[in-house]
This record gives sequence, C-alpha cells and structure tokens, in this order.
Amino acid sequence: MKHKGVLIVVSGFSGAGKGTLMKRLMQVYDNYALSVSMTTRSPREGEEDGVAYFFSTKEQFERTIAEDGLIEYACYCGNYYGTPKAYVEQQLEAGKDVVLEIEIQGALKVKEKFPESLLLFVTPPNAKELERRLVGRGTESQEVIAKRLARAYEESEGMEAYDYIVVNDVLEECVEEIHRLVEAARRAPVRREAFIKEIREELKEFSKGAEE
Amino acid sequence: MKHKGVLIVVSGFSGAGKGTLMKRLMQVYDNYALSVSMTTRSPREGEEDGVAYFFSTKEQFERTIAEDGLIEYACYCGNYYGTPKAYVEQQLEAGKDVVLEIEIQGALKVKEKFPESLLLFVTPPNAKELERRLVGRGTESQEVIAKRLARAYEESEGMEAYDYIVVNDVLEECVEEIHRLVEAARRAPVRREAFIKEIREELKEFSKGAEE
Repeated sequence: MKHKGVLIVVSGFSGAGKGTLMKRLMQVYDNYALSVSMTTRSPREGEEDGVAYFFSTKEQFERTIAEDGLIEYACYCGNYYGTPKAYVEQQLEAGKDVVLEIEIQGALKVKEKFPESLLLFVTPPNAKELERRLVGRGTESQEVIAKRLARAYEESEGMEAYDYIVVNDVLEECVEEIHRLVEAARRAPVRREAFIKEIREELKEFSKGAEE
Repeated sequence: MKHKGVLIVVSGFSGAGKGTLMKRLMQVYDNYALSVSMTTRSPREGEEDGVAYFFSTKEQFERTIAEDGLIEYACYCGNYYGTPKAYVEQQLEAGKDVVLEIEIQGALKVKEKFPESLLLFVTPPNAKELERRLVGRGTESQEVIAKRLARAYEESEGMEAYDYIVVNDVLEECVEEIHRLVEAARRAPVRREAFIKEIREELKEFSKGAEE
C-alpha cells in the first residue's frame, strides 16, 4: 500500500531524548502526527492515558492482536507494547507524516511491512552522556538505570538496521536534522510516483511526435 | 571498501540542467569534487579537454579498460563514456564528496560496486520544459532534439532505480536540495561506523560495571 505521508519510525536508547525531540518536532512543524502506542505497562507518575500511551490490560491487548488491530507489537520487560493500526493509516492517507516511537523489534517489523518507511535511530553523543541523562531524570532507581544501560548495549547491536543515525546533542539542531531527513525521504521515487508517471507519459507523446 | 566522502551519481535527461547545477554546487560548497569523464565522442564547440571531458581515442579508451582504470564505462550513440578510477578514489579518501555525472547504465554499475553511493536523478518540472530548454540551447539540430527526447523517454524507465528524484525548477533551490540530500546520506549507518563502534564499546563497559 502506498501512503501520502511518510511513516517515520523513531527508536533510540532510553534516555536519548526521543520524547522531548518528538514533542518539539510537533510544536515546530504541523506536518507530523504522533502515533500513540498501546501498552500493558503501568503508567509512570503523571502519565495520562492516551497521551504517551494508551494503557490497557493484558486481556484487552491480546484481543486487539487477535482482531489484527496492531501494525506491530512486541514484549519488553514483561509488558506488551504495540501500534494501533487505524490511527496511523488514517493520518498517512490524509498526508500527515506519522511518527512511531518504538523499539527495534517493532521498527524492523514496520520496515518489513512498509519498506518505504523511514527508520531513525536517536542517540546521545556518547554513552557517558546517556548515563548522565538517565541519572539526571531522577525518576529511576540505580537498578533500573543499570538495566537500561545494559539494554542500551543490546540495542546498539541493531543500529545498522536503521536508515539514519541521528545524534541528539543540541535539541533544536536535532529537530531540524530530523525534519530534513523526512523532507529527503519525500524525494524518493516511491513518493514521486505520480510525477514519474506523468513525465513519462508526456515524454512518450513527444517521442511519437519526433518519429513522425 | 569504505570511503570518507560520499560518492554521488547524478543522472538526468539531457537538457535537465545537470551541468549548470553541478557548476553552481561546486561554487557554493567546497566539499565537492567533480569527476571528469573520459569519452571518445568529439568535443562540442568550445569544449576544452579535461574540463567537461577527457577526450580520448577509441584505442586509448580500450587500453584504459584493459588496465582496469575505469569505475564504469558504457557505450552511448556509438561513443565510449567512462569514469577514471584513480581521481575518484583519491578524492573520496581525502574526504571530498565526489560527483559523477553519468547516464543510467553507468549509474547502476556504480551502485552495484558501491552500494553506499547516492544516486540522484535530475529532471525538469515537466516534459514541455525539457523540450523548451533543448530548443533554447540553440546548439542542436531539430533531428538531434527529437533523438534526445526519444532517449529521455527511454531513460525515464530507469527513474525508480535512483535514490532520489530531484526536480530542477529554480536553480538555487535545487542546489540546496542536492546539498541536503548529501548531508542526509552522511547520517546513514555506513558513514557513522566509527561513531557506532565507539558508543557500542562504551555501553559494553557500562553494562559490565552495572553487573558488578
């Protein structure tokens, strides 16, 4: 299926600043729509249902899987995470560029289903900075931070599968960089199909004229 | 082989304005180096040897092929066209982004040899404009123009093989667009290998620390 908008998958180490980046991207540009994932994990303090996630029970989640209502889903740390299909399809058809903020397992599944999707991996400039940001957040125990760093190492094994590696050092610069990568994706032949078809037909007419 | 610079292949219909675009790109930015092709075709009026092309005899050209001195070569309208290898390799290693202005047969051969190369297809906004530019050039007979339009139709069949379709409407905007596509290519994992390797090693150290 061909979409009018670009399907953008954003992954990256926990603590790389994906959330802040995406929030800022939505503020600066109005061509983006952020997909809200569904999860069975417990809400963190202050997390509202339908904003960062749709929180669901395991039973609800498994019913949605059975109804083919998810683009992808995965299990991470004992919880389900998935991307509800309807909203994404609807926004893409309307010409919006839809951002999915998901981890690597899900990203690879999306790329398989939608080869024209744009896979971005967000990383801080170095590992020390990642640790600093995780500690600075102040919401996680030392144990959770250690787990996240170990998980980051595992995730780093998948970086080559992404289309682009985006280094999040200065927020505003990184937002611009992501926007430019999306604009670049719009120039790919898969998104220029109508244009290619038209110029090809015009040239065919001209060639016929030239032969006469 | 991994290069420090980006290998950029620019193709497009004769009359799409590739020459002017590339000249302007070199004027505005200093990270580019234009590869000069070798050809056995006769120089057009005012064409100097070593500027648009290195003009060579058929015998010289075939000797260069035998010596494996070309990245790619092709025969078009009874003449050889090829890309001398030494200059390209040397500039890429020095960190320059090297532009090859070649037609589709050559472009596909380059992509095969160097999968990380960036293939750009330059086109005017429509076929009518292409004809207008070819006629306006005033250097070609009606017969040659007709041949070029027929050739353009054939070439349009290959547009999907390129990474990006670049519409050359306003020169300065198109130069910026090409530059941004090259900057985007620099964010691909194949060009971030050193960065990926480093952060992976750092994270591995952190994970070890966390386990203790």
